[in-house]
Amino acid sequence: MPQVKVGLIGFGTVGAGMVEVLVHNRELIEDRIGAAIVLKKIADLDIHSDRGVKVDPALLTTDAMEIIDDPEIDVVVELIGGCDQAMEFISMAMERGKHVVTANKALIAQYGKQLFETAERCGVDIAFEASVAGGIPIIRALREGLAANQIEAVLAILNGTSNYILTRMTEEELSFDEALALAQRLGYAEADPSLDIDGSDAAHKLTIIISLGFGYPCRYEDVYKEGVDKISLEDIRFAGEFGYCVKLLAIARKVDGQIEARLHPAFVPLDHILANVNEAYNAVYIEGDFVGPTLFYGLGAGKRPTGSAVVSDIMDIARNQIKGISRRVSPLSFARSPATELSLRPMDQVSTDYYFRFSAVDRPGVLSKISGVLGANNISIASVIQKSREAHGSVPVVMLTHEAKERDVRKSLEIIDQLDIVTEKTVLFRVERKTGI
Amino acid sequence: MPQVKVGLIGFGTVGAGMVEVLVHNRELIEDRIGAAIVLKKIADLDIHSDRGVKVDPALLTTDAMEIIDDPEIDVVVELIGGCDQAMEFISMAMERGKHVVTANKALIAQYGKQLFETAERCGVDIAFEASVAGGIPIIRALREGLAANQIEAVLAILNGTSNYILTRMTEEELSFDEALALAQRLGYAEADPSLDIDGSDAAHKLTIIISLGFGYPCRYEDVYKEGVDKISLEDIRFAGEFGYCVKLLAIARKVDGQIEARLHPAFVPLDHILANVNEAYNAVYIEGDFVGPTLFYGLGAGKRPTGSAVVSDIMDIARNQIKGISRRVSPLSFARSPATELSLRPMDQVSTDYYFRFSAVDRPGVLSKISGVLGANNISIASVIQKSREAHGSVPVVMLTHEAKERDVRKSLEIIDQLDIVTEKTVLFRVERKTGI
Repeated sequence: MPQVKVGLIGFGTVGAGMVEVLVHNRELIEDRIGAAIVLKKIADLDIHSDRGVKVDPALLTTDAMEIIDDPEIDVVVELIGGCDQAMEFISMAMERGKHVVTANKALIAQYGKQLFETAERCGVDIAFEASVAGGIPIIRALREGLAANQIEAVLAILNGTSNYILTRMTEEELSFDEALALAQRLGYAEADPSLDIDGSDAAHKLTIIISLGFGYPCRYEDVYKEGVDKISLEDIRFAGEFGYCVKLLAIARKVDGQIEARLHPAFVPLDHILANVNEAYNAVYIEGDFVGPTLFYGLGAGKRPTGSAVVSDIMDIARNQIKGISRRVSPLSFARSPATELSLRPMDQVSTDYYFRFSAVDRPGVLSKISGVLGANNISIASVIQKSREAHGSVPVVMLTHEAKERDVRKSLEIIDQLDIVTEKTVLFRVERKTGI
Repeated sequence: MPQVKVGLIGFGTVGAGMVEVLVHNRELIEDRIGAAIVLKKIADLDIHSDRGVKVDPALLTTDAMEIIDDPEIDVVVELIGGCDQAMEFISMAMERGKHVVTANKALIAQYGKQLFETAERCGVDIAFEASVAGGIPIIRALREGLAANQIEAVLAILNGTSNYILTRMTEEELSFDEALALAQRLGYAEADPSLDIDGSDAAHKLTIIISLGFGYPCRYEDVYKEGVDKISLEDIRFAGEFGYCVKLLAIARKVDGQIEARLHPAFVPLDHILANVNEAYNAVYIEGDFVGPTLFYGLGAGKRPTGSAVVSDIMDIARNQIKGISRRVSPLSFARSPATELSLRPMDQVSTDYYFRFSAVDRPGVLSKISGVLGANNISIASVIQKSREAHGSVPVVMLTHEAKERDVRKSLEIIDQLDIVTEKTVLFRVERKTGI
């Protein structure tokens, strides 16, 4: 049986998951592809910790160059994360003619262009199914399954940690801090959760989805980004009163020849399918011009699902290798740059419905003043809840608007937040109800 | 730019959809694959009807052999449906070295083995993404995206017509006949809806899923099959009272080294994700040993989604052709037959929870008699609803059981239906609550 030789750099959680898949499903993998995947070397700075999976100690090395310089190794799997060192290892491996599999969303989102150029020059494949939505084969869906479609819109829940926190806040009425602490205790959040909760992780994934789906070379810095770290229980409760829940949504949508690219918490109608995606699950809703609405749903993180996505990429490369080819599908699924001129839609041009929570003094005429400013800026109100006085003397006035432009909203809030009747900075959520199954 | 020449046999609804995709998204397709897909000929018995899409009349022929014998044509797309004629055309095309794309689930389910052998002998590809779940790329997910996983279970809603009828019965309390008539009026059901409502269509798709997912050469005749045509509104209402809805489920599940293969209406808990798949949508829930639970959701039928799936297969073959290869992935994604001995689990060995609706005379002791028979056959009752007397003198006694064996259930009902207190044949539904997100 033909062999495909693999070197793994980075024996952390996902690395251990990948090895587990290779060991546990060896026979199945050989049955499917007609080749053996041989793990030849594993490099990690720590080669002593127990990863819960048995490997021959002779495979372990602390020197990644032993893998990169090994002429027998066909595929280098990079699972160290981070950008600089990973970039260096991957580039060197490709220069030596090796195919690369990575789960590194930050790297692909920020340095994809450069990496893909190197891969093209070196005639090798670079695969990254595990970088977006863990075990859900969403990269393949965009590159191949839905390839005949113009992608019109993507709405996705891409960060399991944030979704877990929001679920606990919604279902058990925990505060953000309590929910985060619980997520950390249960292993859904890292000790330093900042990349998850500030939205960076999901924005990296959205960057990749946009490049794949729209053939537009999206830059990570250009994606609008807000995380879940400023969400208060109060707004989640109001969302419920209006018939919505709060989700951290990654949104890409074609509007007037431009692409909206934004990652932020949003109100989602309770009967929308994404409202039912809870716990640490991910889901990607894709609308194609012919296929219509589709949804892909599963575990977006974790050792086992992500490990299985890494192995699916190795199997793909193995299937190429057996046929003596490479680069059958280009990394972003575009053999040539699309001729159509797309650009990103500036955030202040985005139109959507909004939720506002104003903190105002409890005095007659407050609502009239606020709505006056909104009206003067083309924002019309759809519904209002005004609560009675609270302990500290100010009342929340919450409202949903009809569709309005972000630019008008920002202008209005700047004025409103300076009114003497307003006691705190106004809280804003965007309301997504245009797209759905 | 390289060209891939395609001949289409069968210019019906899906054929017109495919042509529309090729025309409308020509540039996108060329950008993605770096080749032009040229539709060279279209064969249909009717070459005069307007299909709502413009084609050069010179492409049309009534003689499929003009396509099959054309040495320039690389890919033959078969969309005539039915088995005998389609089998003949496809076999001849493959013998002449042409790759084949088909949406014909009946053909693949019943004659797949033979077709795949011919394809192997002739060194050509045969692709059938459009045969299961329309636009949802579920074949690719099983063959490639989830290929590193042992598939543990599949639960799927695979027939849009049946799901549309059940949705109308549930939401508007229409009778089966009313819902079917509405489905026909709106184009969700054919004039002769028998293949949809008797479960054959979904059972064909389940056969294909089992072969792909488990590497087990499932025969269509061996899949247990019941359609939606005998479902009464009364049972849908009782389902609601118990916290369930009724769905036509395709189920494949590994149990003790055997595979359950069954297609029947089932009670699904209202909080299960499949309970929220309504209207004409399809959804496929797949559980893999590493990826865990996943769901793929979208439109399972219709000209545009199915047309886009057909074109995705042509693009796949084009990508092979550009690289000068074929048969990169074998049709069922197994390069060799799995060594593990699997078999289908006989239906009478299946264990699940059950719902029974007994029609009994309104007399004391009825419940005790019925439950006595059940108890004697190892069936224990989880909950009971007994309604008051109805006009015609008999009362429905409905119950949910704990897990029981189908064999025991059948034996019990045989006895119960002959009791003199029982006035009509007992209605049975299986209750699926073991697998879920």
